[in-house]
Amino acid sequence: MKILIAKNAGFCFGVKRAINIAVDCEDDGGNIYTLGPIIHNPQVVKQLAESSNVIPKESIDEMAEGTVILRSHGVKAQELAKAKDKGLNVVDATCPFVKKTQDYVKSLSDEGYTVVVVGEKEHPEVQGIVSYSKGEVIVASTVDELKGLSYRKKIGIVAQTTQSQKRLEEIVTYCVGVASELKVINTICNATSVRQDESVEIAEVSDCVIVVGGKNSANTGRLVELCRAIQPKTFHIEVAGEIEPGWLDGVESVGVTAGASTPDWIITEVIDKIRQLGAK
Amino acid sequence: MKILIAKNAGFCFGVKRAINIAVDCEDDGGNIYTLGPIIHNPQVVKQLAESSNVIPKESIDEMAEGTVILRSHGVKAQELAKAKDKGLNVVDATCPFVKKTQDYVKSLSDEGYTVVVVGEKEHPEVQGIVSYSKGEVIVASTVDELKGLSYRKKIGIVAQTTQSQKRLEEIVTYCVGVASELKVINTICNATSVRQDESVEIAEVSDCVIVVGGKNSANTGRLVELCRAIQPKTFHIEVAGEIEPGWLDGVESVGVTAGASTPDWIITEVIDKIRQLGAK
Repeated sequence: MKILIAKNAGFCFGVKRAINIAVDCEDDGGNIYTLGPIIHNPQVVKQLAESSNVIPKESIDEMAEGTVILRSHGVKAQELAKAKDKGLNVVDATCPFVKKTQDYVKSLSDEGYTVVVVGEKEHPEVQGIVSYSKGEVIVASTVDELKGLSYRKKIGIVAQTTQSQKRLEEIVTYCVGVASELKVINTICNATSVRQDESVEIAEVSDCVIVVGGKNSANTGRLVELCRAIQPKTFHIEVAGEIEPGWLDGVESVGVTAGASTPDWIITEVIDKIRQLGAK
Repeated sequence: MKILIAKNAGFCFGVKRAINIAVDCEDDGGNIYTLGPIIHNPQVVKQLAESSNVIPKESIDEMAEGTVILRSHGVKAQELAKAKDKGLNVVDATCPFVKKTQDYVKSLSDEGYTVVVVGEKEHPEVQGIVSYSKGEVIVASTVDELKGLSYRKKIGIVAQTTQSQKRLEEIVTYCVGVASELKVINTICNATSVRQDESVEIAEVSDCVIVVGGKNSANTGRLVELCRAIQPKTFHIEVAGEIEPGWLDGVESVGVTAGASTPDWIITEVIDKIRQLGAK
């Protein structure tokens, strides 16, 4: 049985950086918190809690004195201010691409643009970047969600870093028709589209696809959708133990890809498990 | 026979303003020149020459001392500089919407944007606005003309004032894919689209359409195209004398529309002529 592994599977630059920052915090001693999970992978979050005592909390209110790490997706401006007011030691592990998007939203808003964020309202990254606008800000992941928008003099557009180019283009096209001036900052992270394209290529030549990543990870979820559209035998797992032997029956080639928040050690375990089952 | 006349046929704001400025120049005495025709209507240009001694020239070199009126479509920055260097009295009759577009091109270029002008390379308005960029500037009227364009960090887009919204949208969509940052200033003049929409509505309920305007007028040409697509019996004339009686045979309703550079007196003559033929 052949195993095809996506070259760009797993940790992206921003996630790697956040984990390294969190591990380094151990040296500072005291309590170490993150606001929500530092990355969308429960196994990594668990491991960081055990090895480096990094504890996720749902709110700043739940944190005693110590260090708060700003997670890779970033936090709301108000949460950051609250953490500083409380005298917590703030360590910023926000992905630099997300940070840039927050900065763009702030400057667009300062320049008088109505800000449109192409993204999912409920995603913590989006909630974070939205909070940096001091003026009107609208979140939409599709043109339909924008259809009520009437004339605005100046519209500034950014995107959640993991959005697809197509959605950004559709929303930009709509906004050309309702604004006198439009400023678009393409904040989509290239790593996302490279990983998606590569996963699709692998799905096209595989009899079965295994996508590894947090069930709470938006970018992993999108990989599953894309691969399943090509190869219906696509499975989403978080850990090797979830693989069922039956999945590989009669399979000659298995594709393996993973979301941006999936660590190498989980990918390695998954590959070992597939090899073991394939050898039977 | 019913005659349907487009409410917004004829002189737009910018053309009216340019003619008034030209007529007022007579009071200054001396030679009065325009660089090319002041508007794209030969009859008006002829009338201005006869009544107010306003003489169109092809180049600044052909002008002796006196006044040069910058035509409604605007002139190239280099031509303006040359006129000033020569000591000519410069009177600016550039349409304020065109002037704004020139200013936008200048500031986009100053801010480091590669400038894309959605328009026709050969049109004097476009040649004028293009000249205000000190950096890279690309003219395209369709996406096909842009297809070779590779990555640019910052792209700034403006449009020839008489372009269609659809062409602007298509080019913006393409540019989202090749730039990190996009700034779009929608410089399309509303009067153009209002006139086009109204002409199409009239064509839909007419047995024959007569479009009045200079054969060298781009916006009149576009009205002809749009009306002809709906009513094949669409005729483009400059003056009433061109109407052939046969055009109105068996016609119950005639639509009349006119380009932005067609004066009221020509439209009135055309309507009188149609009434006269219809009464036969």
